[in-house]
Amino acid sequence: MTILKVKRSERLIDMTRYLLERPHTLVSLTYFANRYDSAKSSISEDLTIVKKTFRERGTGTLETVPGAAGGVKFIPAIQEAEAAEFVKEMCLRLSEQDRLLPGGYVYLSDLLGEPDILRQVGKIIATQYLNQPIDAVMTVATKGVPIAQAVSSYLNVPFVIVRRDSKITEGSTVSINYVSGSSERVEKMELSKRSLKRGSRVLIVDDFMKGGGTVNGMKSLIEEFEAELVGITVFAESTFSGNRMIEDYSSLLCVDEVDIRDKTIHVSPGNYFK
Amino acid sequence: MTILKVKRSERLIDMTRYLLERPHTLVSLTYFANRYDSAKSSISEDLTIVKKTFRERGTGTLETVPGAAGGVKFIPAIQEAEAAEFVKEMCLRLSEQDRLLPGGYVYLSDLLGEPDILRQVGKIIATQYLNQPIDAVMTVATKGVPIAQAVSSYLNVPFVIVRRDSKITEGSTVSINYVSGSSERVEKMELSKRSLKRGSRVLIVDDFMKGGGTVNGMKSLIEEFEAELVGITVFAESTFSGNRMIEDYSSLLCVDEVDIRDKTIHVSPGNYFK
Repeated sequence: MTILKVKRSERLIDMTRYLLERPHTLVSLTYFANRYDSAKSSISEDLTIVKKTFRERGTGTLETVPGAAGGVKFIPAIQEAEAAEFVKEMCLRLSEQDRLLPGGYVYLSDLLGEPDILRQVGKIIATQYLNQPIDAVMTVATKGVPIAQAVSSYLNVPFVIVRRDSKITEGSTVSINYVSGSSERVEKMELSKRSLKRGSRVLIVDDFMKGGGTVNGMKSLIEEFEAELVGITVFAESTFSGNRMIEDYSSLLCVDEVDIRDKTIHVSPGNYFK
Repeated sequence: MTILKVKRSERLIDMTRYLLERPHTLVSLTYFANRYDSAKSSISEDLTIVKKTFRERGTGTLETVPGAAGGVKFIPAIQEAEAAEFVKEMCLRLSEQDRLLPGGYVYLSDLLGEPDILRQVGKIIATQYLNQPIDAVMTVATKGVPIAQAVSSYLNVPFVIVRRDSKITEGSTVSINYVSGSSERVEKMELSKRSLKRGSRVLIVDDFMKGGGTVNGMKSLIEEFEAELVGITVFAESTFSGNRMIEDYSSLLCVDEVDIRDKTIHVSPGNYFK
């Protein structure tokens, strides 16, 4: 009896770890039964407990796929209250006076290099697109990359990096010209030809949006690849006095006001929460 | 009795998740006792089971820190056999004919955009530096970023991105000139001044090393910041006929031979395994 109890404990611990490392991946009951040398009925009971605990603790959903080819699939998600709490904290951190840079820009690089911030950002954005099939996450180098990677890890799909400069290590690329929303200059961006399949469903993410020109450029690239845009989410947007090129997007944070004289930055939650 | 058993099951599942999301972080027994409204003695028993399972399944180590300010700390690590198996698989993928680019370069961007590959690379490199205190992971934009982020997530320390082009959103930067090892040109790289504290212990990672010039540049930057180099690990190196600027480094993979005429690439495990 004691041995059996320990067995179940160990299964639950290892199963939890195994599922967390493989989001959105179907794992069959047979796989677990073999892995732990246990009856399928015991595995099924284990999974019921995992499912309940994940739900109650806000870890995400354990989906059950019935039938012979069935199994379970872990779908990570963050609860709204936890997301709101995190964004409130980020508002405070973004408002720190010493983030103000010449030109009214806000320094973000430290935050986008902290692993626990990236985990939360990844979970929040992934949660937004849970019910839409996504084949790839797209971003532009360099500061969008950590966000794309974090989201891609929770959705378990690859991410692709659009670049403003060509590199010999990318092979053939497809390039487009776009108008930078804030400076109104014409710029170029490109993506390795082999990085995106035709018909892919693509989610665009980026660190910061002002005029929306960069995001608009990525939209053109998606068209050029005959792929499909699923949605756009940015970590932070700033209020923009000009004509924004992008209307349908989400932001976690909004930099409302930057006062260069008083050195104050005012940041509030973005439209993600509206 | 049944209720108690379920309680333990749920604790084990949630504890596992909680610890996996916070590597290298001390969590007190009191925290868990409050979180699950359970006696410390039960929590202690739970942790013994978690520890044993993590060890047996190769998840990593659960360190126990004794005393009043004590608790547990999860140290992720990969087992050598699993790391070797992964690298063997990567050798095959890197050898794929259609990766060969003009100039004898190898296309890597797709691999470095796959979340499960990045997880394994992150774990392998983090395992190498388990016993050395590290304050930050450093890389150069753009392709090194996913690797730095993966390693940083397992070591639970921030990563910083060195850039070849200055950006207004980085604030003041420190720049250095370096000699590119393969082309012997003098180039420039820079890092935001506020991104690295004096005395930080820094781990350098990158996607690819040929002559070692870029890595050497990062070494100079570390000196410029009065920080300390802990180690250098690259995803792949290529055999280099010239005089390599860096001697003390690790690589997971080694591109031994590229035959542009026959379109073949030969890849073997790097010196990480020697």
